[in-house]
Amino acid sequence: MAEAGWNRPALRGRALEIYDAVRALPIISPHGHCDPNWFAGNEAFSDPAELLIIPDHYVFRMLYSQGVPLETIGIGVAREDRDPRAIFRLFAQHWHLFLGTPSRQWLDYTFANIFGIEQALATESADDIFDQIADRLSSDDFRPRALFDSFNLEVLATTDGALDDLAAHRAIRDADWPGRVIPTFRPDSVLNPAHARFEVDVPAMGVLCNVDIGTFDGYLEALRRRRHWFLDAGATATDHDVSVLTTEWLDRPELERLYRAALANEISASDAVRFHGHMLVEMAQMSIEDGLVMQIHVGSTRSTNRLLLERFGTDMGADIPKRVDWVSGLDGLLNRVGNNPELSLIAFTLDEAAYARELAPMAGHWPALRLGPPWWFHDSLNGIRRYFDQVVETAGYRNLTGFNDDTRAFLSIPARHDLWRRGVSLHLAEQIDRGVMDAGDAHHLAAVLSRDLALDAYRLKER
Amino acid sequence: MAEAGWNRPALRGRALEIYDAVRALPIISPHGHCDPNWFAGNEAFSDPAELLIIPDHYVFRMLYSQGVPLETIGIGVAREDRDPRAIFRLFAQHWHLFLGTPSRQWLDYTFANIFGIEQALATESADDIFDQIADRLSSDDFRPRALFDSFNLEVLATTDGALDDLAAHRAIRDADWPGRVIPTFRPDSVLNPAHARFEVDVPAMGVLCNVDIGTFDGYLEALRRRRHWFLDAGATATDHDVSVLTTEWLDRPELERLYRAALANEISASDAVRFHGHMLVEMAQMSIEDGLVMQIHVGSTRSTNRLLLERFGTDMGADIPKRVDWVSGLDGLLNRVGNNPELSLIAFTLDEAAYARELAPMAGHWPALRLGPPWWFHDSLNGIRRYFDQVVETAGYRNLTGFNDDTRAFLSIPARHDLWRRGVSLHLAEQIDRGVMDAGDAHHLAAVLSRDLALDAYRLKER
Amino acid sequence: MAEAGWNRPALRGRALEIYDAVRALPIISPHGHCDPNWFAGNEAFSDPAELLIIPDHYVFRMLYSQGVPLETIGIGVAREDRDPRAIFRLFAQHWHLFLGTPSRQWLDYTFANIFGIEQALATESADDIFDQIADRLSSDDFRPRALFDSFNLEVLATTDGALDDLAAHRAIRDADWPGRVIPTFRPDSVLNPAHARFEVDVPAMGVLCNVDIGTFDGYLEALRRRRHWFLDAGATATDHDVSVLTTEWLDRPELERLYRAALANEISASDAVRFHGHMLVEMAQMSIEDGLVMQIHVGSTRSTNRLLLERFGTDMGADIPKRVDWVSGLDGLLNRVGNNPELSLIAFTLDEAAYARELAPMAGHWPALRLGPPWWFHDSLNGIRRYFDQVVETAGYRNLTGFNDDTRAFLSIPARHDLWRRGVSLHLAEQIDRGVMDAGDAHHLAAVLSRDLALDAYRLKER
Repeated sequence: MAEAGWNRPALRGRALEIYDAVRALPIISPHGHCDPNWFAGNEAFSDPAELLIIPDHYVFRMLYSQGVPLETIGIGVAREDRDPRAIFRLFAQHWHLFLGTPSRQWLDYTFANIFGIEQALATESADDIFDQIADRLSSDDFRPRALFDSFNLEVLATTDGALDDLAAHRAIRDADWPGRVIPTFRPDSVLNPAHARFEVDVPAMGVLCNVDIGTFDGYLEALRRRRHWFLDAGATATDHDVSVLTTEWLDRPELERLYRAALANEISASDAVRFHGHMLVEMAQMSIEDGLVMQIHVGSTRSTNRLLLERFGTDMGADIPKRVDWVSGLDGLLNRVGNNPELSLIAFTLDEAAYARELAPMAGHWPALRLGPPWWFHDSLNGIRRYFDQVVETAGYRNLTGFNDDTRAFLSIPARHDLWRRGVSLHLAEQIDRGVMDAGDAHHLAAVLSRDLALDAYRLKER
Repeated sequence: MAEAGWNRPALRGRALEIYDAVRALPIISPHGHCDPNWFAGNEAFSDPAELLIIPDHYVFRMLYSQGVPLETIGIGVAREDRDPRAIFRLFAQHWHLFLGTPSRQWLDYTFANIFGIEQALATESADDIFDQIADRLSSDDFRPRALFDSFNLEVLATTDGALDDLAAHRAIRDADWPGRVIPTFRPDSVLNPAHARFEVDVPAMGVLCNVDIGTFDGYLEALRRRRHWFLDAGATATDHDVSVLTTEWLDRPELERLYRAALANEISASDAVRFHGHMLVEMAQMSIEDGLVMQIHVGSTRSTNRLLLERFGTDMGADIPKRVDWVSGLDGLLNRVGNNPELSLIAFTLDEAAYARELAPMAGHWPALRLGPPWWFHDSLNGIRRYFDQVVETAGYRNLTGFNDDTRAFLSIPARHDLWRRGVSLHLAEQIDRGVMDAGDAHHLAAVLSRDLALDAYRLKER
Repeated sequence: MAEAGWNRPALRGRALEIYDAVRALPIISPHGHCDPNWFAGNEAFSDPAELLIIPDHYVFRMLYSQGVPLETIGIGVAREDRDPRAIFRLFAQHWHLFLGTPSRQWLDYTFANIFGIEQALATESADDIFDQIADRLSSDDFRPRALFDSFNLEVLATTDGALDDLAAHRAIRDADWPGRVIPTFRPDSVLNPAHARFEVDVPAMGVLCNVDIGTFDGYLEALRRRRHWFLDAGATATDHDVSVLTTEWLDRPELERLYRAALANEISASDAVRFHGHMLVEMAQMSIEDGLVMQIHVGSTRSTNRLLLERFGTDMGADIPKRVDWVSGLDGLLNRVGNNPELSLIAFTLDEAAYARELAPMAGHWPALRLGPPWWFHDSLNGIRRYFDQVVETAGYRNLTGFNDDTRAFLSIPARHDLWRRGVSLHLAEQIDRGVMDAGDAHHLAAVLSRDLALDAYRLKER
């Protein structure tokens, strides 16, 4: 059995010195998926299973891989039919499966440092720990705003659909609470004709903006207005999920033809990809106009398990990364706007083979391009090491963007930023050891990577 | 010159502690290519060159790459025309070529720990070492069964063609010797129409099983019977070599058409791939029925050197790994049977770029899928490090399968498992150092990775 | 701010011992892009900006990526319109961008060890350092030949177009100076029909050689003569830049047809690739005849930034690596001549995913093939580590070729070889630590990797 709290940083020597200097810096969370309603309503979180287990795809995918049916941990089960304590107990019985995974490190940190639990999780301690967490969740100190404050969050960005009214964000701004929670413009459903909601959401966007989206010009105008709606609510960035990366500037007649076909749901799959690729270039151009930073996440084959897709829907742990050709994929976009340093384009990959071969050379050349942090499966101690190993020598540190937690698990945010800071400290300590830099530069970079770069790359100080 | 015995583990501190606790565990060898007749007949092994040099493709490929003609080390030469001492001498002269390779580490271990040789191999010591080895090989302590016992082998699986009568295995079971040597069902020649023996072996299988293989149903029935033949002889697994990975469930009329064409040797290359891909799904389904674990080895371009192929045949050191797309390649199989935890499918890759990007996410999701250990070129200290680095954070340890030596070099088995245990110890010591786990968990995992996982993944305790 | 001189090797323990034994070995530079006229004329180098900043694509690409216009550092500006001091100052202001990059390590070494500068580079010290460098450049000790001698250069190979008269090299040989500066035959413009100068350079080659290049036989004869022209001037190698790797032996009628089309500038892109691929095999065959070592550099998408290409031409920092399939790409060449140990073919890749998967297995098999050192973006401390990590276990050390600096930055040559020797020392110290070899073997290999392998692979001792 593990000793409780063992995973508090086991760093030593230089790495510990570096870590100690940055561990308490404010947290910048410029990309993630928390629900703004938590902070608008400030209601207590529900039970431990609902909060920590059921929505965490890292957790349920591992359980499922070892033969645990998803229903037994409450997935696809109505809330009133779930037994949170039984779910938590089942999870505790399988806790050994998570040895070596970031999930275990995040949760260990969360149990020990957020909930103050002193026991190690195990079958025997499950009920007791469940009770301790449930008890704390009912206290005022564990309401969303109090946690936000105690986490030392300087800013938290959410991700919001293009049609979102941002009422929660407006309520937060109007509240008597200084926490900075900002939206991010995520227009996949109105840019990508292959999106299931495209032909519904585009007309709805027209109504919202009071613009005739019957023409391509009207459509562009509506997009511009939605971006300004987000800007007005505090957004500094957009975010784009791209399945097949290609960007190409199409001529107007073809565009209008594709747009009409898309609206009528009569566009071919390959034309949908081309239209989406063109629209990414339009977004980049609008970013130059309005200053929104542009994020692009590429590289997952979604829902590869068809049984789970039919039974439970998307995001069931069967999204698997794939190869991405970044050079040809971004060619159209970069050759149109990539020489403009006013554009801030942040690229995220799941194909690590592209780090040293493509992305670092590209980020070390194009004025507009920066490289996002290790993402999803690679948001881990080894993932961070591989990232620095393959990226820094060619792109330097200033073409990076610090850290994103990219999570909807609010409670895990301190743990994730802590893991990043540990990874940064280990990396920089090794840089000193191998004669790449001196301790002064390493300490400076530790703060840059923990906080400053994210503020800068996401233009969070400018607004 | 090297000091003799230097390669006995140079581990220190935590890594040495972990290693010391697992170094003497029994060896589980669930996949390899030893000859069962060795243990059935228990005859003394022949001379040192015949045993250690001539059949080892790792050894002769390196010599060949540096201009040593294959004939000079006895390849393509009749046994009576070979001079074993001269071959051993030539090998010793080139011993420096192997610095840094696992071959050198395996052989150093074997010389020192199996044969008790105290000198370092060199041109000057070659004859003396040859004599020492030859001398020991003639003693009863070095007969196959005695070595098996002294190696502390708990179980050794061989690999056997679908038509094998398994007489050697039956002789071993009937002998007054408790060693557990079991067969593995390797049906490539009766599943893959591109296999040179397909149209001969399928009818032969029909005769063996007393089944009419003229129909596809008869063919399936014959396969089922051969699987039971292996089960009855102690097999717990099948093994499949796949060149082009694709799996697709074909409909019955097409299947029957392809089967007839395959039997008539009139099938196209692409149809052969499709038929083979379908048959892999059939094998997976039969595995659910009869409980045999299914192994799949993918990713080598075979015999890329046509001159050597013509002159000496296959397996001449010119098989080179290639890229594999695991997500699309296993799509048909996994979407048919991958959600069934009764299936145990073990995947081996030579394309390490797929570890973090595809295989670890897949093994960390599909109930049926586990990831085999680093294979062939990657069965090495760095290969083991890269494997753990890229796999564990996403798949955990329990979706792995421990170690395979995959060798026909019986004498090297202790060395290979020792190298794995060293690699495991180095990995786990680093996990502790970086705060990923505590010493108790690391010690537990060391035993799991050295023995338990292989027993479990290959269902060796169930039978 | 950095302490001056901090980047002098921070190695410790075993790594420092190994490094100390090889740091002062003579430098072998068998592949690079220095200008032979420097050594023929022995004129003083011009100002610091002209020498260190403006021609260095590593430097200006990083500045450009952070929004510094290329014109401001003198690119695309006539020499008389440049202000070297202002350029150097601008560079110093952006010195922090280079933290963690080999550029910074090379320049730090150069400032401290070549120019004896004791301050750290910074905005405040820029003018003073500029003056110190300018001052030293005007002294006789900093003329090209004196630097060559003080660098302890044993041999320096340049890279020269197929039509070069090699007058500078002849002048060097005739001079009263013992420095060995040799040419390398780089015939891209007369082998690759896609090269912009092909249809001009081939006829010019015919005139130079007094051969009728109207026939394919005449063309081959002209190439043979040019190779001998280079051999007579001291060359030991050829070098080939290949964009799309494919090699295939074409039959004579097709060859003659393609050759005529190429000369007439009427060849299709795909036929140009095939013709070039055939000519690489011809080059390999001529290498067997005349003994020139054959280098092949593969894997960059050139000039991906079209704006910069139009405005400033090629080599503007927008060349980005791409995937290469080495097995199929070299199939035609290797199956024709790869079994001949008389051929020495050295392959350089920018796609590191090919190291463990393809190149190490190939170099560990084919007698003709050796693997070049980490190149371009990968000529760095991490690049060196990844190279050894992925290559040595399968290819050993003797199928490698030591180090190339591949630079036109003459002043950086000692720094680059020093970084390689540091990387070698770190690698070998770890090999000892992990029990892969003993200290004696590691010390021996350090010298082999620092000097002997390059001499051997490039046949520099034979001539």
